[in-house]
Amino acid sequence: MSEILQKARRAKLVSRRVALLNSAVKNRALKTMARCLRENTAAILKANALDIKKAKKDRLAPALMDRLSLTAGRIKDMAVSLQDLAGLADPNNQILAKIKRPNGLDIEKISVPMGVIAVIYEARPNVTADAAGLCFKAGSAVILRGGSDAARSNKAIAAVLRESLRAERLPADIIQLVETAGRQTAAELMTLRQYIDLLVPRGGAGLIRRTVEESLVPVIETGTGNCHVYVDKYADLKKALAITINAKTQRPSVCNAAESLLVHKDAASRFLPAALPALRNAGVAIHGCAATRKYASYVLKASAEDYAREYLALEISIKVVKSIDEAIEHIHRYGTRHTEAIVTENRRNARRFLSEVDASAVLVNASTRFTDGGEFGFGCEIGISTQKLHARGPLGLKELMSYKYLVRGNGQIRQ
Amino acid sequence: MSEILQKARRAKLVSRRVALLNSAVKNRALKTMARCLRENTAAILKANALDIKKAKKDRLAPALMDRLSLTAGRIKDMAVSLQDLAGLADPNNQILAKIKRPNGLDIEKISVPMGVIAVIYEARPNVTADAAGLCFKAGSAVILRGGSDAARSNKAIAAVLRESLRAERLPADIIQLVETAGRQTAAELMTLRQYIDLLVPRGGAGLIRRTVEESLVPVIETGTGNCHVYVDKYADLKKALAITINAKTQRPSVCNAAESLLVHKDAASRFLPAALPALRNAGVAIHGCAATRKYASYVLKASAEDYAREYLALEISIKVVKSIDEAIEHIHRYGTRHTEAIVTENRRNARRFLSEVDASAVLVNASTRFTDGGEFGFGCEIGISTQKLHARGPLGLKELMSYKYLVRGNGQIRQ
Repeated sequence: MSEILQKARRAKLVSRRVALLNSAVKNRALKTMARCLRENTAAILKANALDIKKAKKDRLAPALMDRLSLTAGRIKDMAVSLQDLAGLADPNNQILAKIKRPNGLDIEKISVPMGVIAVIYEARPNVTADAAGLCFKAGSAVILRGGSDAARSNKAIAAVLRESLRAERLPADIIQLVETAGRQTAAELMTLRQYIDLLVPRGGAGLIRRTVEESLVPVIETGTGNCHVYVDKYADLKKALAITINAKTQRPSVCNAAESLLVHKDAASRFLPAALPALRNAGVAIHGCAATRKYASYVLKASAEDYAREYLALEISIKVVKSIDEAIEHIHRYGTRHTEAIVTENRRNARRFLSEVDASAVLVNASTRFTDGGEFGFGCEIGISTQKLHARGPLGLKELMSYKYLVRGNGQIRQ
Repeated sequence: MSEILQKARRAKLVSRRVALLNSAVKNRALKTMARCLRENTAAILKANALDIKKAKKDRLAPALMDRLSLTAGRIKDMAVSLQDLAGLADPNNQILAKIKRPNGLDIEKISVPMGVIAVIYEARPNVTADAAGLCFKAGSAVILRGGSDAARSNKAIAAVLRESLRAERLPADIIQLVETAGRQTAAELMTLRQYIDLLVPRGGAGLIRRTVEESLVPVIETGTGNCHVYVDKYADLKKALAITINAKTQRPSVCNAAESLLVHKDAASRFLPAALPALRNAGVAIHGCAATRKYASYVLKASAEDYAREYLALEISIKVVKSIDEAIEHIHRYGTRHTEAIVTENRRNARRFLSEVDASAVLVNASTRFTDGGEFGFGCEIGISTQKLHARGPLGLKELMSYKYLVRGNGQIRQ
C-alpha cells in the first residue's frame, strides 16, 4: 500500500474521533502545539538550514528562497497563530437553522467538520503549522503535502505537532505529512475521493490549475487575483491615489494586490499626472493604453496580455475608460472574480459597481488588500477562494465546515 | 463552434442580466411559464407520444418508460411547481452577515446567484421544467441536457419556457436546452469551467460517477442513497414497524427509501417475527444475516454486496447487530452519507446516533423518506446532495446560491 493511501485511510479513521472532540480539548492541544514549536525552535531551524543549503545548490529563485527561510521570529509567529486559534470560537456543532414542521418533525441544521482535508502547498513551511492548526480547530483530520524544497523543515514542524497531539493523548494521525517526494503523491491524493472530503491547493497558478483539472476530490480553488482599482469620474482623487498606491505596492506578491488600474476619462487628466509619478517613485513598472501614455514617457504600451496578467510584482497595467460600463465590462473580461474596487463619491455608481461586478469581494473606497481573513475579522484563513461553490473569499474556520440535518420525530411516516 | 460552446457562452452572457432581475419580474415570468405549459399541453403530449413510440421500438425498460411518459396531469403538475416557485421567497441578494471592522470598514455578506448552472439528467421530461424554474428563480441561467429518450418532449417543454421568457421581454437564452444527441455533449459541458459555475447531475449512479470523475466544472453529487433504519434495543416496536415499512415500501425507487434494516439483538426476537411477514406481505424480497434467517424460511442469505447495494426496488437487506456501536460501524462502512434513521426511546442512544453517524440527514423515530426539499419546508428541490462541499441534503433555492462580500469604506488603506 502506498504512503498516500495508508495515510488517507488513517486520516479517515481518526476524522471520526477529531469531529467529536470538545472545544476545551482542542484548544489545550493547540496551546501545547504552540509551546512545543517554541521549545523546538533550534531543531526546526537546523532542519530548515539543510533545506536552504539544498535550495542554494539547486539555485532556487530568491522569492522562493525567502518563503522557504525560517527564523526564530517566523517560528514564533507560527506559535502565536496556533495560540490565537485556541482563542477563536469553535465552528463545530453550531446550530445554523431550526425548522419545525407541521407534522411535528423538529429539524436542526448544524455545522459539522468536513472530515479529512488535504492541503497541497509549495515552498512555505509555515503553512504546515497554519493549515494543520486550522483544520484541527475545524474538527477535521489533515493531510499535508508540502513542496519538496521545504521537505526537512516540514517534517520537523509536523513531528512537533504530532508529538504535541500525543502528549495530549490524542491520535497523532490527526495531522499527517506526506513524505514521499515527487509529483505522483499529489496526483494520488487527488484520486482518493472515498477518504478525502476536501482538497485545498495553496500556491501558484500552475498548481491550482493542475489541481482543478485532475482532482476527483472536491477542490476549493484559491488565490488567483487579477484585481482592479477603478477610479470613477466622481472619485475623491486623494483617496484614489492612496488606495492605488496601497493596493499595488504594500505587498505586491500576494493575490489581493491590485494588478490593474482603470481611470474614467473625465478623471484622467486630473488623476494620472499625480498617480503615474507616484507609482514610478514606488518602483512600479507601468503598462498603459494610448491615453495613459500621453501623460508620461515612461509608460510602456499595454497589450491585452498585460490586462490579463497577474504580475504579483511591482508592475501594473492602466487603462482609461469612457464610462463605468466600460470599467465593468473590462473587469468582467479580465478579472478573476477575486477582489475589485471602485473609488467614487457617487452613490449610484457605487451601488452599480457593487451589484454588477462579480467577485468574491467588491469594495468601495478601500484598498483591495483588505480581502483577507484577518482583515475581515475571521482571525485566520487558509486562502482566498475564487470559485462560487461552497465558499468565496477568505476561507476561515466557518468556511472549512460542512453541515448536517438532525431530524427528531416520534414515529412520523410519510403519507 | 459547437452547440454546447455557443450555448454556454450565451448563458454566461445572459447570466449577468438574470442575476439583476428583481423578484416581481422573475415571479411574473414563472407564472407565465406555468400558464403557457398548460396552454400547450396538446403540443407537449404530441411530442411526448413520438418519444414513447421510439422508446417502445427501442424496448426501453418499463421503469424508464414510466418516467418518460407525460399525461395532462403531469404537465399540470409541472405548471403548479412553477407557480409555487413564484410564491417562494427570493433567495437572491439576502444579507447573510454584517461585519463592522474597527477601521470603519462595513462588510456585508450577501447571497448572489451561481451564474450558469448546467443540469444533466436522464429520461424524465418534467426535470426540464422543474430545473429551469428553480435555476431561474435562483437568478442563474441554466443549460439543460436531458436524456435522448426524452429529446422531443424536452424540446417542446423548453420551447414553451423560452417563448414565455420572450413574452415577458426577457432573453430566451436564460433557459437553454442542448439538442445535439450523444454522450460527447455532456462531456463537453463538463470541460467549460470558464462559462459554467455549477454542474448538477440528476440520475442513476453511473451518470453521477461519470460526472464526478470527468467534470472540471464544480459538481454537486446527488442521489445515491443506501439508507438504513436501525431498530435499537430501546425502540418502540410499533413505531419501528411503521417506519421500516414506510421507509422501504412507500416509494421504493427513490434515493431516500431505506435499503437496509439493522436490528439490535435484544429487540430481534420481538421485532423480526412481526417485521419479516409485514415486509413479505408488502412484496419485499428479504436478504438477511444468519440470525435474521432463523425467524423465517423465506429470508435469503445476505452477502456483503447486499449490504452495499442500493436496491431502489422492493428488496431489503437485514442484519442483527450486537450493539449500537456495531450499527454505527455498519452504517459507516456501507452507508452513502445520505439519510440514516434510528428508532429508539433512549435519549443517550439517540444523541450518540445523531452525533456519530455521518450523513446529510440523521433521523430519530421518523422515516428516511422525509429527507426531501418539500418535507423540509424548502418548497422545492433539484436533488439531494451526498457530498460535504457547498450543500448537503435537499438542494432548494438557497442551496443554489453563492455569496459575495460588499465592503464599504471611506478611503481605508492597509497598514
